Amino acid sequence: MKRYALGIDYGTNSCRSLLIDLDDGSEIGSTVFNYPGGEMGILLDPRNPNVARQNPQDYLDGLEKVAHGALQQAREKVPGFGADQIVGIGIDTTGSTPIPVNREGTPLGLLPEFKDNLNAMVWLWKDHTAHEEAAQITELGNRIRPNIMAKCGGIYSSEWWWSKILRLRRADPRVFEAAFSFVEHCDWIPAVLTGNTDPLTLRRGVCSAGHKAMFSAEWGGLPDKEFLSQLDPALADLRDRLYSEAHTADTKAGGLCAEWSRRLGLKEGTAVAVGAFDAHMGAVGAGIKEGSLVKILGTSTCDLMIAPADKPLADIPGVCGIVNGSVLPGCFGIEAGQSAVGDLFLWLVNHLVPDSYGTTVGEKFVNMEKSLSAMRPGQSGLMALDWNNGNRTILVDARLTGLLIGQTLHTEAHEIYRAYIEATAFGALTIIKRVEEYGVAVHEIINTGGLSIKNEALMQIYADVIGRPMKVSRSEQTCALGAAIFGAAAAGVGTVADIQSRVTAIRNKVFKPIAENHRIYTELYALYRTLHDAFGTRNWSGKLSHVMKELLAIRDRREA
Amino acid sequence: MKRYALGIDYGTNSCRSLLIDLDDGSEIGSTVFNYPGGEMGILLDPRNPNVARQNPQDYLDGLEKVAHGALQQAREKVPGFGADQIVGIGIDTTGSTPIPVNREGTPLGLLPEFKDNLNAMVWLWKDHTAHEEAAQITELGNRIRPNIMAKCGGIYSSEWWWSKILRLRRADPRVFEAAFSFVEHCDWIPAVLTGNTDPLTLRRGVCSAGHKAMFSAEWGGLPDKEFLSQLDPALADLRDRLYSEAHTADTKAGGLCAEWSRRLGLKEGTAVAVGAFDAHMGAVGAGIKEGSLVKILGTSTCDLMIAPADKPLADIPGVCGIVNGSVLPGCFGIEAGQSAVGDLFLWLVNHLVPDSYGTTVGEKFVNMEKSLSAMRPGQSGLMALDWNNGNRTILVDARLTGLLIGQTLHTEAHEIYRAYIEATAFGALTIIKRVEEYGVAVHEIINTGGLSIKNEALMQIYADVIGRPMKVSRSEQTCALGAAIFGAAAAGVGTVADIQSRVTAIRNKVFKPIAENHRIYTELYALYRTLHDAFGTRNWSGKLSHVMKELLAIRDRREA
Repeated sequence: MKRYALGIDYGTNSCRSLLIDLDDGSEIGSTVFNYPGGEMGILLDPRNPNVARQNPQDYLDGLEKVAHGALQQAREKVPGFGADQIVGIGIDTTGSTPIPVNREGTPLGLLPEFKDNLNAMVWLWKDHTAHEEAAQITELGNRIRPNIMAKCGGIYSSEWWWSKILRLRRADPRVFEAAFSFVEHCDWIPAVLTGNTDPLTLRRGVCSAGHKAMFSAEWGGLPDKEFLSQLDPALADLRDRLYSEAHTADTKAGGLCAEWSRRLGLKEGTAVAVGAFDAHMGAVGAGIKEGSLVKILGTSTCDLMIAPADKPLADIPGVCGIVNGSVLPGCFGIEAGQSAVGDLFLWLVNHLVPDSYGTTVGEKFVNMEKSLSAMRPGQSGLMALDWNNGNRTILVDARLTGLLIGQTLHTEAHEIYRAYIEATAFGALTIIKRVEEYGVAVHEIINTGGLSIKNEALMQIYADVIGRPMKVSRSEQTCALGAAIFGAAAAGVGTVADIQSRVTAIRNKVFKPIAENHRIYTELYALYRTLHDAFGTRNWSGKLSHVMKELLAIRDRREA
Repeated sequence: MKRYALGIDYGTNSCRSLLIDLDDGSEIGSTVFNYPGGEMGILLDPRNPNVARQNPQDYLDGLEKVAHGALQQAREKVPGFGADQIVGIGIDTTGSTPIPVNREGTPLGLLPEFKDNLNAMVWLWKDHTAHEEAAQITELGNRIRPNIMAKCGGIYSSEWWWSKILRLRRADPRVFEAAFSFVEHCDWIPAVLTGNTDPLTLRRGVCSAGHKAMFSAEWGGLPDKEFLSQLDPALADLRDRLYSEAHTADTKAGGLCAEWSRRLGLKEGTAVAVGAFDAHMGAVGAGIKEGSLVKILGTSTCDLMIAPADKPLADIPGVCGIVNGSVLPGCFGIEAGQSAVGDLFLWLVNHLVPDSYGTTVGEKFVNMEKSLSAMRPGQSGLMALDWNNGNRTILVDARLTGLLIGQTLHTEAHEIYRAYIEATAFGALTIIKRVEEYGVAVHEIINTGGLSIKNEALMQIYADVIGRPMKVSRSEQTCALGAAIFGAAAAGVGTVADIQSRVTAIRNKVFKPIAENHRIYTELYALYRTLHDAFGTRNWSGKLSHVMKELLAIRDRREA
């Protein structure tokens, strides 16, 4: 009898279901639900652009809608399909997206008394109100807990768990007092589905705990009370109402409870996996294994690798997340990334591209890509640093900005677009060089996410710059696919690797490096690296007067 | 009885007359003639974008038209006006714009046999076909005549006299052989008007000779034959058919000849002054005197100062033109400049400004200026190097390119526009600092040219960056006004300084520096200078990791 698994992927503006056939990964049902709250699902504060909250009710409503939608499609598509053939459910979400909850694990935002208070709602990953708290945690951590800070690259972000909780404590003590505990979005959904939302006993995932809440077995779980109390004694008290264990996502959080069995139309007791972050499950859905680098190319880029946890792995300077079990059980998950990729291109097209390229954003992209595809490497004489949103890897420095060099009086917008694509490719290469330098070999690169499917010019430039084939994941929904895989693993269908081998695949079209282009990009990368180190590192010292001249020489040599 | 003088200004696309009252500078007649030849007056070669030639017939036709136009207006405007009240005529032109001529001084392009040959036409200043020849002259000059090269900043340009003549020799020997001699545009018009076009005896101006043909009394006139013959023996032969004397523009080239008296409707014998380049005469029309810096703000910027020739003046490193008498008799003319100013802004608006700012170039400029005027110094966090067309002063290096630093995902086009305006202001300040460092004090800054009149935001930024009042010349036609002044001086009306004091003036509105803005710009200039030296000089070596962070710190401090 056929077996299926259901993945639910909670994104920034919507959630999506993916129902897969566990024999071959066929996608037999998938629906999207756009969160109705706020603006594109995000609750904003007109007085403070840093605020980004969500209504937990949207998550619950979406859960029903997308599950029903997937089931409906499966019934139409697969003769004889029955919901009882679904053996497991997996969940991935954005993060760090903490939810203040009461003693019962009910989000405060669902309670009548807090329904109009943004601070009682879900604090979405992209909420940046806690930048001062992040700076304080960074300062204190580096001073008294450098071992903890080393695991997150020395800088704690305003997007992360403790920053947001500390911010809430200061900005709205009444809500903080009302919060018995806090639960990550990715842990709360499995808790709801299994009918156990008790903050003290619901199963927490190691992915969110390790990457964002500074949780590690190495130092006994969450950060110690002394550290927390120096931030705020209330955080030290809170530590007792959080968790001391965190699980990999192939762990069964529990069986589907009666209520949600009824609401979703699924069999009671169906295995529900522990949740994890979208990128990490996306890497699994893209087929990550030892030696694979999975690049999730979206508004920003998330790069994921794994390394066996039974062998020693050095700290990799500038690589900000290394967490045991965050991607696959038994392996270190190694997370790196670039702060602005799709966002960078969108900024360019929104702010600096004249209407001669088209009247809509879409038209502008299409026409710029047409023009830049006809260019040869080095032809424009331009070079960029893509740090418009800071640099996450390998410099781990939010206080960096963009740079563009080589402009003449003839420079055109599509040439700048190409320079920015190349800059992100040089950044990608820099990450690869760094992890390999520390003993993590990259044998294949699998790309997934919107840009990998929609932007062939970009994929070819990546291949040419990096000098390796660029593979693209078959599924367009790798995050939801990864979640489904974990749902199946939690149901005991097999190991994650077994299931992956059956349900994930690579597209036929692989972007292969063109030798001549790679040769030129190798020259250009040396100049990029000079700029990168000159502007991005304190210990660099040297000369730059050759940079503009060499860019011109490479341009002119190609013209001849 | 009233006396008047006529200035004729030959620009790149048109020529213009200006008839002034010598008592007070009142402008009683002015007409423009657009050259009918080629594209906007420039003869192009579709196979070679470096070609820019002109038809000498356009100059003659224009001369008649603009003189008639000015006379007509004067007769309508001034009761009792008579053409015999015009005592002198002055001429300024672009340069270096050499014309191949036959033994009689007739441009080869006017002869039937050459009428279809672009190489026989006038080689306009912006013709860049001779870049290889310029490189050869630069190399040879620095090797065997470093004293000559020191006066042009160590680099000989493809826009200049010898490069173009050598290019003609190589590209079209038949035309070169047919050329008995060569005459600068600014020398040929006075020759025509005075009826003596004999290349061996017509009066040549020291402005063009000194700045572009390497002429100096210091080394016996034009460069020696040994130097020239190493470029090409034919150039050494040519030297005998050029000139050994060059004159300041207050010198009378001769009296208006009968034929041109008839053609222009002016009195025979009217004094015709020796010609000079537009910027130099423009400086005089703007009221240059010792201690004044005149900035001619156009597509590029030309900065002019004078220093008494009877006192020693050091070579000023990176200031590319110091020529005795090129601006005023008895003074060194000191010429500096910036390679792209108006051109830079036009490039930006043409290539990188979306239609949200307006649908025409004009609208875009207006709206960008409105937005940038509301910004405070440092507010955007951006900084630029305005080297999109190389750097003329003080780096004297064509192989430099533009740079923009500090972009975020929120950077907008008008912020970049402001950064480029600031970059040109920082460049202007760098020139001032350099000349003052070498003993040439700047007591006042007078601006002229289109940008000085049309762009108030720019003028205020210049005042704030430079920290000194920005004056603006009263006349909108300072080049033609300067030419008229020299016409009057050649007629014996008085010294150039006397006439200047009567006919030139400054506008009431002076842009004064705002102390708080200047303070911030002083901080920003230190960062600019770091980038300037890092990318522009070979001897710099140091660190740059503070640059992005300090730009952000200045931005954030202002936001608080």
